Amino acid sequence: MAKIGIIGIEGRMGQAIAKVLATSKHGLVGGVGRGEQAFELAAQSDVLVDFSAPQAIENNLRAARGENIPILIGTTGLSEMELGEIADAAQDIPVLQTGNTSLGVNLLAHLVGQAATKLGPEWDIEILEMHHRMKMDAPSGTALLLGEAAAAARGIDLTGHSESGRDGHTGARQDGAIGFAALRGGTVAGDHSVIFAGSQERITLSHNAEDRSIFARGAVQGATWLIGKPAGRYSMKDVLGLD
Amino acid sequence: MAKIGIIGIEGRMGQAIAKVLATSKHGLVGGVGRGEQAFELAAQSDVLVDFSAPQAIENNLRAARGENIPILIGTTGLSEMELGEIADAAQDIPVLQTGNTSLGVNLLAHLVGQAATKLGPEWDIEILEMHHRMKMDAPSGTALLLGEAAAAARGIDLTGHSESGRDGHTGARQDGAIGFAALRGGTVAGDHSVIFAGSQERITLSHNAEDRSIFARGAVQGATWLIGKPAGRYSMKDVLGLD
Amino acid sequence: MAKIGIIGIEGRMGQAIAKVLATSKHGLVGGVGRGEQAFELAAQSDVLVDFSAPQAIENNLRAARGENIPILIGTTGLSEMELGEIADAAQDIPVLQTGNTSLGVNLLAHLVGQAATKLGPEWDIEILEMHHRMKMDAPSGTALLLGEAAAAARGIDLTGHSESGRDGHTGARQDGAIGFAALRGGTVAGDHSVIFAGSQERITLSHNAEDRSIFARGAVQGATWLIGKPAGRYSMKDVLGLD
Amino acid sequence: MAKIGIIGIEGRMGQAIAKVLATSKHGLVGGVGRGEQAFELAAQSDVLVDFSAPQAIENNLRAARGENIPILIGTTGLSEMELGEIADAAQDIPVLQTGNTSLGVNLLAHLVGQAATKLGPEWDIEILEMHHRMKMDAPSGTALLLGEAAAAARGIDLTGHSESGRDGHTGARQDGAIGFAALRGGTVAGDHSVIFAGSQERITLSHNAEDRSIFARGAVQGATWLIGKPAGRYSMKDVLGLD
Repeated sequence: MAKIGIIGIEGRMGQAIAKVLATSKHGLVGGVGRGEQAFELAAQSDVLVDFSAPQAIENNLRAARGENIPILIGTTGLSEMELGEIADAAQDIPVLQTGNTSLGVNLLAHLVGQAATKLGPEWDIEILEMHHRMKMDAPSGTALLLGEAAAAARGIDLTGHSESGRDGHTGARQDGAIGFAALRGGTVAGDHSVIFAGSQERITLSHNAEDRSIFARGAVQGATWLIGKPAGRYSMKDVLGLD
Repeated sequence: MAKIGIIGIEGRMGQAIAKVLATSKHGLVGGVGRGEQAFELAAQSDVLVDFSAPQAIENNLRAARGENIPILIGTTGLSEMELGEIADAAQDIPVLQTGNTSLGVNLLAHLVGQAATKLGPEWDIEILEMHHRMKMDAPSGTALLLGEAAAAARGIDLTGHSESGRDGHTGARQDGAIGFAALRGGTVAGDHSVIFAGSQERITLSHNAEDRSIFARGAVQGATWLIGKPAGRYSMKDVLGLD
Repeated sequence: MAKIGIIGIEGRMGQAIAKVLATSKHGLVGGVGRGEQAFELAAQSDVLVDFSAPQAIENNLRAARGENIPILIGTTGLSEMELGEIADAAQDIPVLQTGNTSLGVNLLAHLVGQAATKLGPEWDIEILEMHHRMKMDAPSGTALLLGEAAAAARGIDLTGHSESGRDGHTGARQDGAIGFAALRGGTVAGDHSVIFAGSQERITLSHNAEDRSIFARGAVQGATWLIGKPAGRYSMKDVLGLD
Repeated sequence: MAKIGIIGIEGRMGQAIAKVLATSKHGLVGGVGRGEQAFELAAQSDVLVDFSAPQAIENNLRAARGENIPILIGTTGLSEMELGEIADAAQDIPVLQTGNTSLGVNLLAHLVGQAATKLGPEWDIEILEMHHRMKMDAPSGTALLLGEAAAAARGIDLTGHSESGRDGHTGARQDGAIGFAALRGGTVAGDHSVIFAGSQERITLSHNAEDRSIFARGAVQGATWLIGKPAGRYSMKDVLGLD
């Protein structure tokens, strides 16, 4: 049983993680809101989970280092400076920083990379996602993460090869393109499919989220996995044991 | 056994129809190429099937009228003038004009209309299609046909309500919008899905074409159905017995 | 705003309906547990919703009749005697009895009936469902409801035509059969697809439930719809305005 | 350009391979029917492709060895004796023996193994397949191949853990089971999905065949890949570069 401290406990993810811990074998030590210092929390915790704000990263890393405990950082929108602070802290403690804590999505990205490597460029790659009607942008961050996995496996740059939002007279599909399409409606928590379309056959790799609790569950799995690991920088792929 | 004459027999659809007839109980009387007159062909046929060119419509209708036989017109891109000629001919003979001869797609459009009528505006409508990599435009004609069926059922104008090609900062979905998304890749003959996304549930109505023979098969079914019908204008919905 | 009284409020459905009412414009007047009398509850309500037990039906109907208010009965496992009591009560008050309160599922059943009527017997019908790992039987009740809709539309008896649980040397598919297949796993609330497989094309009509709240929401919609209706027997199809 | 000789050229697969070669850069040297000797054919070929009968294996291997050329064996239903003959020949020449020549299906099996390894036993595995109405058995050979890949990755025996053909009172899903479900209808060439169902999320890995040409295409890719390889036993995974 691990003692987990949450930074940003009043946020949507902080609340979701607290809810997961309430029915898990792991314990919630406590939490602090955004803007609050995490030093006392760190003193009582086996691991910190940070879903607060980029500008708090520096202090949060200092709190974890002071107690020599690991920290999982799920805060997004980090600058080069903050990423530098993370790299620095990772020399002393285990740090896992990720933009997506779902184990399922991270496994899918790995499988997409494998398929993109093994299937030749004559297999077209298309990425489809559906989200609830309130989502403000397209493609989703997860769709882009999957596209990056495919592009990296093919040794190409995603930006220069993506075809997103087809509409009107598009012309034929570009060779080597990675296509994106977005559906919006209802209360869909998040569905993603990566389609490899070849000659007379298709391989489709999909992830379907029934609700957003999977991100909280993945964060707890990641945080407890970090305990006892040597200092260093980790990703969700390490939690899954992927190379 | 019906005797069928094909106008535009050297075209892609003409060839496909000839192939279907070769293994059906119905007989291919013969065919004429684009630009050829259909009068002799009409004299030997029970029904004409026209997949030629808009400018040939006038003569083709005259050939059918001269022999008092029905005609199915699958030629697309018709002008107001040609539609007027069809209406005129339909006073004397049965004429079925359609942009899509697949019975499955026409049934799907009917079901989409029913669902759009019965499900309130709080159910968001999204239309997804996938086609082979050579397709030049998006959304597909069939996707638009399905969108028109939904819009008509809701009493709205499709043009003013469609959200196609979402990309970047889109903002939340507009109330009452009909969304379109297009996937392209491989050799896909044509997949279409209409999704009604409500609160915590979705209804999805899909059509999947394994190859393009379904259009030829539907044309033969439509043509033979026309034989013996009273003069008038018909659609594929009439062939299916839809109101 | 309607005043709704729940019979069986301590059950899973009773609780779910109370939760839906808590955030709706309609009000929960109160509820009684199984075995408790509903007469006082009826006196305060505009409509009763009964998810209790078959043996309570007689008294529940009497309570509704005494106050001349409608009642929606979602209790399952009714005997001929209880169905007779319902028919009797429906001479005085509006009664809606149903085994499935989801509007989406009931609409899907209607669309399945339409498709089965219009598509000839050369279109094979298959029904696929997926549910969570704890489900004890197969096919699901909803799958059977969809199968009944297809069988009724084709004028056949479902029992004599169903192919369920294919395994081993099955031989070719029987002409006119309605096939069933069941997937089990995870926490899936309930996915259903009815597939019409023709020559080189398929039409698939699907329903996907994100969670079980849709049954509670449908019960509230059905109950409020009943208020003010003439005495008689109703189904969820009437709520949807289906023939 | 490789010279390919087909043993069993009058069979369904032999014909399909000849058709693929007709439009490929590789050449069809010739073929022999079942029961005919392949020695002369071998003398003219760079590689042999054998889709004949188990009892012909011995002679076919002798023909390939005599000319020191590789052989791809797609014949199924091999006995221990025939597998021994293959192992023996593989000391002198490259031999690729496989029950499924589709590159897409073999890649899918690899991805299924990866996912089954990385996702813990709390993720339920279900395998769904759909085939045309004439298919005589269930689950399909490909579904079983996918099930074997999952079972091997989990270190379990498939036979003792498969749940196939659920129907009636099944009880809850067994922990660690691999479930199978079969749909039959229309002209479907072959669709397969492996579903990993976890708590509130699903990963689905699918293969969709538009027609059966993919098996012929894969056989040609496998055969040409074999040319110039050292003596040994190979599988389609080697063609894909999978470990």
